[in-house]
Amino acid sequence: MGAIITLTTDFGLADAYVAAMKGAILSINPEANIIDICHTITSQSIPQAAFVLSTVYRYFPPKTIHVVVVDPGVGTERRAIVLRTPFADFVAPDNGVLSYVIQQSATELAKDKANPGYVKLGKGLKAVHITNPKFWRLPVSATFHGRDIFAPVAAHLSLGVPPAEFGEEIESLVMLLLPQPHRVADGSLIGHILHIDHFGNLITDVRRADLPGTGNLTIEVGGKVISGLSRTYTEREGLLALMGSSDRLEVAVRKGSARSLLGAEVGTEIIIRPPEG
Amino acid sequence: MGAIITLTTDFGLADAYVAAMKGAILSINPEANIIDICHTITSQSIPQAAFVLSTVYRYFPPKTIHVVVVDPGVGTERRAIVLRTPFADFVAPDNGVLSYVIQQSATELAKDKANPGYVKLGKGLKAVHITNPKFWRLPVSATFHGRDIFAPVAAHLSLGVPPAEFGEEIESLVMLLLPQPHRVADGSLIGHILHIDHFGNLITDVRRADLPGTGNLTIEVGGKVISGLSRTYTEREGLLALMGSSDRLEVAVRKGSARSLLGAEVGTEIIIRPPEG
Amino acid sequence: MGAIITLTTDFGLADAYVAAMKGAILSINPEANIIDICHTITSQSIPQAAFVLSTVYRYFPPKTIHVVVVDPGVGTERRAIVLRTPFADFVAPDNGVLSYVIQQSATELAKDKANPGYVKLGKGLKAVHITNPKFWRLPVSATFHGRDIFAPVAAHLSLGVPPAEFGEEIESLVMLLLPQPHRVADGSLIGHILHIDHFGNLITDVRRADLPGTGNLTIEVGGKVISGLSRTYTEREGLLALMGSSDRLEVAVRKGSARSLLGAEVGTEIIIRPPEG
Repeated sequence: MGAIITLTTDFGLADAYVAAMKGAILSINPEANIIDICHTITSQSIPQAAFVLSTVYRYFPPKTIHVVVVDPGVGTERRAIVLRTPFADFVAPDNGVLSYVIQQSATELAKDKANPGYVKLGKGLKAVHITNPKFWRLPVSATFHGRDIFAPVAAHLSLGVPPAEFGEEIESLVMLLLPQPHRVADGSLIGHILHIDHFGNLITDVRRADLPGTGNLTIEVGGKVISGLSRTYTEREGLLALMGSSDRLEVAVRKGSARSLLGAEVGTEIIIRPPEG
Repeated sequence: MGAIITLTTDFGLADAYVAAMKGAILSINPEANIIDICHTITSQSIPQAAFVLSTVYRYFPPKTIHVVVVDPGVGTERRAIVLRTPFADFVAPDNGVLSYVIQQSATELAKDKANPGYVKLGKGLKAVHITNPKFWRLPVSATFHGRDIFAPVAAHLSLGVPPAEFGEEIESLVMLLLPQPHRVADGSLIGHILHIDHFGNLITDVRRADLPGTGNLTIEVGGKVISGLSRTYTEREGLLALMGSSDRLEVAVRKGSARSLLGAEVGTEIIIRPPEG
Repeated sequence: MGAIITLTTDFGLADAYVAAMKGAILSINPEANIIDICHTITSQSIPQAAFVLSTVYRYFPPKTIHVVVVDPGVGTERRAIVLRTPFADFVAPDNGVLSYVIQQSATELAKDKANPGYVKLGKGLKAVHITNPKFWRLPVSATFHGRDIFAPVAAHLSLGVPPAEFGEEIESLVMLLLPQPHRVADGSLIGHILHIDHFGNLITDVRRADLPGTGNLTIEVGGKVISGLSRTYTEREGLLALMGSSDRLEVAVRKGSARSLLGAEVGTEIIIRPPEG
């Protein structure tokens, strides 16, 4: 089996858009092993795609190529890019959808002072602006670069074409303002819900290292209070909090949905109070 | 990696029907590379399956085998067929689901006067009626020919069995009455919505070559008027029209759903008025 | 193409959980051919997963490895197991999700008197308790054994690691109380709806061999009466009953949904009365 190419899109499952990308890839590299990551990203939600991708790319073998097409600016001046990191290659629009990947892969990272909203990549990462039509499906449509640019470029990359062939190297990429938990005066930590999963679990921006202490924390979210962290989803009845499988604080309900119980949404704050005394 | 076999069905995602077809294929050709096109075709909607297939099959490599199982007549006298075209092979019930493929592949095509609702294939296309049980999964159920006939036949076809082995050649196939745009007295073109995609974009039967002029067209649909064609989905606020990625006129809403805004449905008319003067 | 590994989960399609399992598999066996069976099992519904798996595993080639992760007890003391049967290998939690597989594969099967809710496997089946961390993804999370244990074990199994390497052999496994039809005094058979499929067809626990006679049966479900069995879904208007593609009595509606018409649910009784006289 050949190189692995993964696909993450907001194309849904009711049309043949995803399959058109697969056909475009297989027309160039018939040995490619194409794996779906997720195609039900909320339409045009760049932050959601960025998060979902961040939870999974490191579980694939090195040299996997991840294609992400959540691309509200298709056909406009937003750039298409190839990003090479020590973990994997990425082919995507330069719209912030790789923000977590950049944050997690870069050894140094600085705001690009000349371009607000951009970061300079520093060492360890290499990006190119895709401009060479030699590797595209022609004629390129104005509305479906997934099929006509991203998929073909990924297929050529999987055949060993070096990134530099696709266009000129660039030093800065678009970076979303990623939510970060912060400490407040009383020692509590204020975090945020980043994602709500299929089970209704609320996944936050709080990592284990962020927690204010290791003892009996108190967690407040959606007007409810949870006392202490559980280890599993069944450890207690009702609402519970635990460190999830991507090292993020999660709020869940045993045999139920925390989303439904709390009416919580992406962005909702969560307060973690340190053990008293 | 072996031959590519694609699957298009109305089986949904909640059961193991699609997987049973994959198991049946892999039991015959373990090297087959099976690609999903779409499994959420509206139950028994032959026109929708025909349209979705039409948007994608040409993006796959030549010799790809496309299996389509939207088959309300399973177990009745409707025929199962293999259709060989210059672009690809198709395995499907003879119920019209290949109508766009036939229309787009045939060099000549004539109504079959002896059989209303059928077309004679002419040159370039070859069809056989699948009747040879040697290539089926036995015993054949009355209700799941996808697993017992279509998948096994596709698998044998992918191993190089010639179409003629599956049954006798036939000259006419069922043809849907495909919607076509038409000109009216004032020079306007009346088209129809063929499909509404995941984003709520309204995809019509109007091709670029059908447009009444190249200047500032006026487009009317669902009681709204759009002035001029855009190039991308973001070129203007609100409702817009553009030529989509399959060379069909589409109506869309920037960051929204034209379906929701207009309450439009498949079959709704769209009027394209030529530039004045 | 390498070994076939199938996946059945309740992870849904909105996250990257399924893809994380695929990445974990491909990191160990890059040649694995991973096939999705179903990922929309109702959350934590072990009986539904057991049923869906039962309808499909025999259609895959021998030596296929089926991974099932519907695992409400993840992180607790429930065991993770490998089950080898004459038809296939299974990697799953020991929570009953393999009940139909065990029932259909065992040559002898007896209740484990020392452990209520368990069966002794007898000949033909071999099970091991997965305890050897050598084959896991480390560190193992408490909440995602699909990625950290089940997927890696399946990948190693697909590379030829013998089951005994994963842990010690065990003789009893958890067995669900599977619904069974039963005869009543007047000769009728009382069955139950096991599953409702995507089309709204009601699939029951009644096999052809269970039917009370071969003539003009009368079938009662949800307050409606059906006279006689049909052969196909289109044989008569409205409500009908037939033997489905997995040799189970089904109730369906031509061009409609029996679920909607009858308001039936999983567990609803169905009465099959023998021909009169």
